[in-house]
Amino acid sequence: MNFIITISREFGSGGRELGRRIADYLHIAYYDKEIVNEIAKETEFSKEYIEEITSDRPVPLFPIHAGISFTPMVDPRIDQASEVFLAQSKILNMLADKSSCVIIGRAADYILRDRKPYRIYVYSSASSKLKRCMERENGPINEKKMAKRIKAIDKQRRHYYEYYTGLSWGDPQNYDIMINTSDRDVKALALMIARHIKEDFVDAEQ
Amino acid sequence: MNFIITISREFGSGGRELGRRIADYLHIAYYDKEIVNEIAKETEFSKEYIEEITSDRPVPLFPIHAGISFTPMVDPRIDQASEVFLAQSKILNMLADKSSCVIIGRAADYILRDRKPYRIYVYSSASSKLKRCMERENGPINEKKMAKRIKAIDKQRRHYYEYYTGLSWGDPQNYDIMINTSDRDVKALALMIARHIKEDFVDAEQ
Repeated sequence: MNFIITISREFGSGGRELGRRIADYLHIAYYDKEIVNEIAKETEFSKEYIEEITSDRPVPLFPIHAGISFTPMVDPRIDQASEVFLAQSKILNMLADKSSCVIIGRAADYILRDRKPYRIYVYSSASSKLKRCMERENGPINEKKMAKRIKAIDKQRRHYYEYYTGLSWGDPQNYDIMINTSDRDVKALALMIARHIKEDFVDAEQ
Repeated sequence: MNFIITISREFGSGGRELGRRIADYLHIAYYDKEIVNEIAKETEFSKEYIEEITSDRPVPLFPIHAGISFTPMVDPRIDQASEVFLAQSKILNMLADKSSCVIIGRAADYILRDRKPYRIYVYSSASSKLKRCMERENGPINEKKMAKRIKAIDKQRRHYYEYYTGLSWGDPQNYDIMINTSDRDVKALALMIARHIKEDFVDAEQ
């Protein structure tokens, strides 16, 4: 059976790098923006639009079913967002059928829950996230603005996750392991996880 | 420099076993009840009394310094508890001076924070904790009573930790790694952590 690893990550915590490295160590597929591209092909929305709509909660407070069932006037963004979410779920399942893989974000831990994915949550201290973001930033931005941006993006991720899953983003019960990358070498952490997965899940099943 | 590993754990999550195994893999000292024995020698309280007082918050709501500085009538349990806590801090520092070690509970992550210990939090689902506790229980106890006992002990641990540290028990920011042991082999998890610590901290320093 294909082995699925999902990564939920706070912005600037190094979660993408961790996922990329785990995929490299295990020689398995890695999905991130690629998923969005697939969705774009599937629904014929533009890539940019999908990016926008999947990185934010579509409307405040209304769960999708309530919006569809009980509201006489439906905000067109609800329909489009739920269409994107359903298309996304379909794509994630297709990718998980295809091969073992690492999937970053997109509430994949929840969408693929029946496949019992290995669920990683990556976080770090506010100062560590700020440092990482300032280092990788090309344009001119000061620390105060960057700190604000980090908070805003994490808030969007939390809202998106909680809106679609009904679960709490960052609640330990939703993950197999939670990793603090503050002052840590992401490469070493990736090796630790990859080896554990290989020895105790992949090899153990064979 | 000695390498210190602290383990905070929910009752029934297998945290003690994890700690014991990590200490075995790394060939370093392991402290749990032993600490309590040391404290008992230090303060001449009975072992049983210390056990009781260190597993519960001494008084509700009052931080120690407030209790001592501003309350005209001091609950004698505050003085005894703070004496125990200070003795305990002294012992933990002495043990950390002596050799590398794994320390279970006792707010060691906070007490030894200046030594930058590797801080592990071990948790699992309510059903997994119940299963583990029922398996290791010798006397006759039904599941409902056991579930209640688990909740009560976790509550005591939370109170004790939060009373003395002013931090939130189980807040990811206070730990380097958080491990969910639900349906997992603790032996494999211990090996994962021990290897990571050996390669990336102990060997790296030499």
